[in-house]
Amino acid sequence: MRVLPDVAVKRLPVYLRALGEMQAGGQGIVSSAELAARTGLTSEQIRKDLAMLGGFGTRGVGYRIDTLGASIRAVLGLDREVPVALVGAGHLGTALSRYNQSRRQQPRIVAAFDAEPTKVGQQIGAATVRAMEELAGVIAALGIRMAIIAVPAPAAQMVADQLAVAGCDVLLNFAPVRLALPDGVRVHNVDLAMELEALAYYVRPDLPVNPGR
Amino acid sequence: MRVLPDVAVKRLPVYLRALGEMQAGGQGIVSSAELAARTGLTSEQIRKDLAMLGGFGTRGVGYRIDTLGASIRAVLGLDREVPVALVGAGHLGTALSRYNQSRRQQPRIVAAFDAEPTKVGQQIGAATVRAMEELAGVIAALGIRMAIIAVPAPAAQMVADQLAVAGCDVLLNFAPVRLALPDGVRVHNVDLAMELEALAYYVRPDLPVNPGR
Repeated sequence: MRVLPDVAVKRLPVYLRALGEMQAGGQGIVSSAELAARTGLTSEQIRKDLAMLGGFGTRGVGYRIDTLGASIRAVLGLDREVPVALVGAGHLGTALSRYNQSRRQQPRIVAAFDAEPTKVGQQIGAATVRAMEELAGVIAALGIRMAIIAVPAPAAQMVADQLAVAGCDVLLNFAPVRLALPDGVRVHNVDLAMELEALAYYVRPDLPVNPGR
Repeated sequence: MRVLPDVAVKRLPVYLRALGEMQAGGQGIVSSAELAARTGLTSEQIRKDLAMLGGFGTRGVGYRIDTLGASIRAVLGLDREVPVALVGAGHLGTALSRYNQSRRQQPRIVAAFDAEPTKVGQQIGAATVRAMEELAGVIAALGIRMAIIAVPAPAAQMVADQLAVAGCDVLLNFAPVRLALPDGVRVHNVDLAMELEALAYYVRPDLPVNPGR
């Protein structure tokens, strides 16, 4: 298979979200211009991305929403079970696990771990919280390669090391710390503060009244 | 002042994060190539963005990290108080408020609201949870224009309407629902599921072993 560039991979869920909304609204066909209006990306970019997936559009007609959605899901590997481990069953971890369960979609959080003994045995979303000592065994047994780090910053590096040793090579890190990991382990950092920082621009008192959406 | 394109605004916190890390490491000067390596953006893009802010680079030398960081913060309006209201004091809201407090940066969550009477009066991060009935009065009194929506999906539209009426024109929405709002109100949707969906690609069993980071 052809390996897609990271920036294109990141855009695929954006398309999925827009397609899902249109489908929920009863729409069957979509043009790249409509997708552009809904996603904020350019038509050109969208046509390029979708052509890379195999090109489903009919010139002057558009894309079939169901076929395109299924193809994107297949490219992302969302047409099969994608089990995820969650480390950290605090407020953020609990919110993530519940939200994940409510979506009933892939990837799915199937295992949760916390260092706090009082949390072990609790049910958060679809997962039961287990002790950190069980992490390696459970991850191996379930064949988990993806994990979410939702622990306080000082614990994040140690948790990441444990996950890497256990065989997880794709990590989603919510802790505000830069993790050092062996080659071959991919870390994606989510920093919730960055969203707020970018939005601050739009409440600058000297900005002309809200320039678009 | 010149209005920056949304896509450029979104990249500014990414630069801030990288500059902060370098500064913490004792570095004083940075090249666009280094910033590119750290952020995953191209040097060309970075030079273009920074030139738009006023151009601080010295050819062949690079950018002074402190000056550049201060300028980006000023452009984003982070050099002054940016008060934010949070609606929804559940697990996600609590995590966001605590995290926001721990960062001690702008924007700052200064007010929190929840419809659940048992939550009213609780302290989450730097904010005390208040009843929804107080929302309009508090937002007006504190001159708040930015708000975070962290309520369940069925409640999100009603909360957004209340916020808009109260004078908030920049909303960060965590509820998995598309909000309809009057012109002039900017909504930025954060969908935590999208991060996981994009990462699923990298655990596809048929993908050549981890193509880069």
